[in-house]
Amino acid sequence: MSLPLFLVPELPAGDRWRLDGPEGHHAANVQRLGAGEALLLSDGRGGLLRATVAAAHKGALDLDLLDRERVAPHDPRITVVQGIAKGERAELAVQLMTELGVDRIVPWQAARSIARWKDAKPVERWRATVREAVKQSRRAWLPEVTDARTTKQLALTGTVLLLHEEASAPLSTVPLAGDITLVVGPEGGIAPEELAAFPDAVPVRLGREILRTSTAGAAALAVLSVRLGRW
Amino acid sequence: MSLPLFLVPELPAGDRWRLDGPEGHHAANVQRLGAGEALLLSDGRGGLLRATVAAAHKGALDLDLLDRERVAPHDPRITVVQGIAKGERAELAVQLMTELGVDRIVPWQAARSIARWKDAKPVERWRATVREAVKQSRRAWLPEVTDARTTKQLALTGTVLLLHEEASAPLSTVPLAGDITLVVGPEGGIAPEELAAFPDAVPVRLGREILRTSTAGAAALAVLSVRLGRW
Repeated sequence: MSLPLFLVPELPAGDRWRLDGPEGHHAANVQRLGAGEALLLSDGRGGLLRATVAAAHKGALDLDLLDRERVAPHDPRITVVQGIAKGERAELAVQLMTELGVDRIVPWQAARSIARWKDAKPVERWRATVREAVKQSRRAWLPEVTDARTTKQLALTGTVLLLHEEASAPLSTVPLAGDITLVVGPEGGIAPEELAAFPDAVPVRLGREILRTSTAGAAALAVLSVRLGRW
Repeated sequence: MSLPLFLVPELPAGDRWRLDGPEGHHAANVQRLGAGEALLLSDGRGGLLRATVAAAHKGALDLDLLDRERVAPHDPRITVVQGIAKGERAELAVQLMTELGVDRIVPWQAARSIARWKDAKPVERWRATVREAVKQSRRAWLPEVTDARTTKQLALTGTVLLLHEEASAPLSTVPLAGDITLVVGPEGGIAPEELAAFPDAVPVRLGREILRTSTAGAAALAVLSVRLGRW
């Protein structure tokens, strides 16, 4: 079984350290880690630190700090521009993509997005979902979730791919170069005027069937992970 | 936008037909399809029939039957032996795998399955989830969901792959021949005595991170879909 992972703002120096705050609460009171058990700390920026519990308290653990490791960032990086979908579906998309190695998520207020974001709460939920998924999958890098963007506010760079059910080019064979931006529509798909707004994007498809917005980005990341040699 | 799809036991012959029962209710009262609108009927065994609504009634639609199409079955086929996980996670696994083209799902009562199935209700829920996902993704083939099996009851054939976080062979390069059976553990993974029970299985991995049981099968299907030329 893999060690549980906890996210901290900075990895502590030295040999002994106390994990408290929300992560300490989670480790001590929810996961009930006790003396002698091992865990990982990550700063979400590639730093990993293996530790064992020296003593458990209510809401905190005293840790013996052991090995340190630096995980290199992905190169190339994958950004997913995710059409905003209804709460549960959107959060599922974000969770799956994080598990599957997305590097950056841009919430996109698309023409066919039924949900309209009016305050910062939804983006905070996406960020919380990303943190949970990073811990779940023991990733050393925390994907960035940017603020929501309208179509006009998107500045797409690198190889821009757009998942579209009427595209003829399969994602499995389209040329890739440098960092990748993948555009995934909301529940109702990408509107024609949006297609026109991304003149440099390459429309690509995954099979002939229709994938939900919560499945499409995840499936594309699996295919790209193989193509980029990550898997 | 793609046409909505409804599952019927047999595709009707002739030019005119009434869709009633639960699917008729769904089409007429929930999706509120009206005169002139188009839809697909499928028998879940490769048969597709495009129709338009001649008249809408409460709980039923009179249909004009138009084009017929036969979709060939997948060759090779992919069976996923899915470790039984807790309700929501298991149903998410089944939904994602159906969208991504699984051909057959075997619920596996694994050593580390926390949920123990005591009656037919859970397998009926998996079958209902598969039907919904087939409709959602407009598939012409309804994946079979077998009754639950214990490790002893599993009879694995063809290329047997076993997703395991400590495997060294990547799924992206392992040799494939004939039909494929993919074994996915439950939440806690596959137990050592289970590994020993599948002597002909090839342990494979997807990346270095930990995938949830609900994500692992789906990601593997995406990779296999490319490798088998489906995508």
